[in-house]
Amino acid sequence: MPFSYRRVIRFHETDAAGVVYFANLLTLCHEAYEASLAAAGIEVKGFFSGQGGMAVPIVHASADFLAPLHCGDVILVVLTPRQLGPHSFEVAYRVEAAASAPATGLLPSSEPERSLAVATTRHVCIGLENRRRQPLPSSLLDWLGALAVVEGGG
Amino acid sequence: MPFSYRRVIRFHETDAAGVVYFANLLTLCHEAYEASLAAAGIEVKGFFSGQGGMAVPIVHASADFLAPLHCGDVILVVLTPRQLGPHSFEVAYRVEAAASAPATGLLPSSEPERSLAVATTRHVCIGLENRRRQPLPSSLLDWLGALAVVEGGG
Amino acid sequence: MPFSYRRVIRFHETDAAGVVYFANLLTLCHEAYEASLAAAGIEVKGFFSGQGGMAVPIVHASADFLAPLHCGDVILVVLTPRQLGPHSFEVAYRVEAAASAPATGLLPSSEPERSLAVATTRHVCIGLENRRRQPLPSSLLDWLGALAVVEGGG
Amino acid sequence: MPFSYRRVIRFHETDAAGVVYFANLLTLCHEAYEASLAAAGIEVKGFFSGQGGMAVPIVHASADFLAPLHCGDVILVVLTPRQLGPHSFEVAYRVEAAASAPATGLLPSSEPERSLAVATTRHVCIGLENRRRQPLPSSLLDWLGALAVVEGGG
Repeated sequence: MPFSYRRVIRFHETDAAGVVYFANLLTLCHEAYEASLAAAGIEVKGFFSGQGGMAVPIVHASADFLAPLHCGDVILVVLTPRQLGPHSFEVAYRVEAAASAPATGLLPSSEPERSLAVATTRHVCIGLENRRRQPLPSSLLDWLGALAVVEGGG
Repeated sequence: MPFSYRRVIRFHETDAAGVVYFANLLTLCHEAYEASLAAAGIEVKGFFSGQGGMAVPIVHASADFLAPLHCGDVILVVLTPRQLGPHSFEVAYRVEAAASAPATGLLPSSEPERSLAVATTRHVCIGLENRRRQPLPSSLLDWLGALAVVEGGG
Repeated sequence: MPFSYRRVIRFHETDAAGVVYFANLLTLCHEAYEASLAAAGIEVKGFFSGQGGMAVPIVHASADFLAPLHCGDVILVVLTPRQLGPHSFEVAYRVEAAASAPATGLLPSSEPERSLAVATTRHVCIGLENRRRQPLPSSLLDWLGALAVVEGGG
Repeated sequence: MPFSYRRVIRFHETDAAGVVYFANLLTLCHEAYEASLAAAGIEVKGFFSGQGGMAVPIVHASADFLAPLHCGDVILVVLTPRQLGPHSFEVAYRVEAAASAPATGLLPSSEPERSLAVATTRHVCIGLENRRRQPLPSSLLDWLGALAVVEGGG
């Protein structure tokens, strides 16, 4: 079941071309990732500041920009994580218009909306001491279990 | 009646000291300003991109930082505008913790909360052709009327 | 001949994990792109604000993060554009440490340095009226000609 | 003797009004502060991440915006610090056009240029354990001594 994050585009996110600056699209996606972790009970302040000597940095990101976003636009970022291995996962994001303004939260039905952008981030869990790979913590496995796409015949 | 804007602090707003980067506090305040304009029916995309040959740039800003803000903190930005003359107004912002999570919207009672920061922005209406002062449009006068502090005996 | 852009990492680009926020890496790359355009005599203010009814938006971006960047680090962004067709081009970026501090400008020899990150942006020229593809302007063809990798037996 | 920091305005610093977003002006000023600390031999990575259990957070900031800044504009941020007491100092910034492109460094003569903006930041030295005021370290006293305005008869 994908996680959906509602957001209004703000003035500081636009640039002199009148639309959202391209790199800010990835920031919008990361906000959705933060919201999904918080919704799963993960304390984000500690999670993102290396609590427990662990970090889960992004090692790869990509984005496709399909339509311009303007100040005041209401968007949904629909997020689906997928475990890649014992140490890593990937998050897929689809940004769509949210004219009919649903709230942040779990998205019960996936009504097809026109995508404004899609993006992906790939994350690897490491120890901060030696920067070597280590297994994903149970909190992230729980988050993955709750949100990940179930492949195959459900 | 002040306007209240609820917001979660996001990771990209923090810096290597572990707290919100000072200038981002003003960005949080400006988001509250944008939300208050939208709530008053002003179409922010046009308003901020010079529609009608008019702009209302910020000519002065100041902020006092009273306590650090961390990733995941839930804050309220409580906003009160005040007209300064035919061409200008000022907006006062108070940032406070929103542990008990009220929604964005009008703040019915002003319960005293510990301020985390206060800020002010001063805005002047100009014509974009000649960059000379011009009277505030009726949409802003309405917004001021709805939100401004009533001075004197109620 | 690739274009090289020298830059000091600033505090506001870091996050509470103590390193550059991932999406800001793409902003560093875009700065190098802007500097290379300016070095080729393109007036960037007009270029990026739709002068002549033309825009060259980014339709795709990707980045690989190979090592953390810290406040105060001096980096080089080495940029190589490549034309993809009559309407589009791609820019490849390699971010490396610049301990021995060369200046911004053309990079005479390409000494192998350890890459801290690599990234790509893909750009398509469009008309702003109809948002349809149109040929790259001569100024960009000149920039591509000066900086593009010459394929084949050099 | 004031410190001067040269900088090109970048696209991501502008907003849909076509000029630098107001809060980014304070970021430009902070970059000049960082450059002045580095020029005085202070290791900024440690300084800004709480090395030695000490921090020097900004407790107040203000800015006056006198003229719009556009993508591609070359500016100078001229910085002058002033000690306020044993625990605190203030930095004054003047942003001016740098058409005739001097390099970053100490500004030998202070030729009067039209100011585009002015700003101030106030900093207080604290211990990170107890967040109580503590004396400025010798490195900052040296920086203040080298750059501070000498008051009184020359």
